[in-house]
Amino acid sequence: MDKHENSITDPSIKSLFENKNFAFVATSMKDGSPHVTPTWVDIEDSVILINTAIGRVKQKNVARDPRVSLSVADNNNPYHMVTVNGEIVEQITGEEAEKHIDKLAKKYLNKDKYPGRSPGEKRILLKIKPKKVVHMK
Amino acid sequence: MDKHENSITDPSIKSLFENKNFAFVATSMKDGSPHVTPTWVDIEDSVILINTAIGRVKQKNVARDPRVSLSVADNNNPYHMVTVNGEIVEQITGEEAEKHIDKLAKKYLNKDKYPGRSPGEKRILLKIKPKKVVHMK
Repeated sequence: MDKHENSITDPSIKSLFENKNFAFVATSMKDGSPHVTPTWVDIEDSVILINTAIGRVKQKNVARDPRVSLSVADNNNPYHMVTVNGEIVEQITGEEAEKHIDKLAKKYLNKDKYPGRSPGEKRILLKIKPKKVVHMK
Repeated sequence: MDKHENSITDPSIKSLFENKNFAFVATSMKDGSPHVTPTWVDIEDSVILINTAIGRVKQKNVARDPRVSLSVADNNNPYHMVTVNGEIVEQITGEEAEKHIDKLAKKYLNKDKYPGRSPGEKRILLKIKPKKVVHMK
């Protein structure tokens, strides 16, 4: 397997984020243990976007420590994947975050509105700046 | 999506580990940041097995802190997945670890011998005892 450092703007890496693949996002718990969760993912220029809800474990973790690590593998070929270590540089709530989860619902489910909202749920958009990008294929 | 705590011995969860799915394994770096890597995975009774090489980032991380978190999603249905938080309870090197990577090569690549060995590479088998298992489908 070829494995080398790269940038997320590389077309082959970008496609991993553009297609309907999940990101497996690792954050650090308060006690220092790692925590991984599968999540929808999106890319915008050289920033990776994920969207969670206020109060979720992942959100509480990154509010305390913005460092994250994530892997995305191609649904059609799991040996094509990218791992990114980076840091959350922006955390956005309100209308922009609500619109963004609908955008992800369109991408992943082909629905105009995200159907998974709980009552009172507030979405938060997390922008991740990559520091180290390893591409494997 | 239905999401509830369960045991890895549940047949539907067990199948996620038995099939040719990858595990995305998160460990903690020395500086406390999270680190995730995709890896082959195996299950034996109520223990999850992964296999890495001595000197790799993941191996050095768990030698220092045995706490891990991992997610496995079904290649054929990414909305069927399990996330496990647990701890490495055994680290085995030598013949047992070398045989085990060949067993994984058989499962994932249908090859009798693992073809990815680097010169001088020493494999290490990590046994993970689950503490919290969340099943989503």
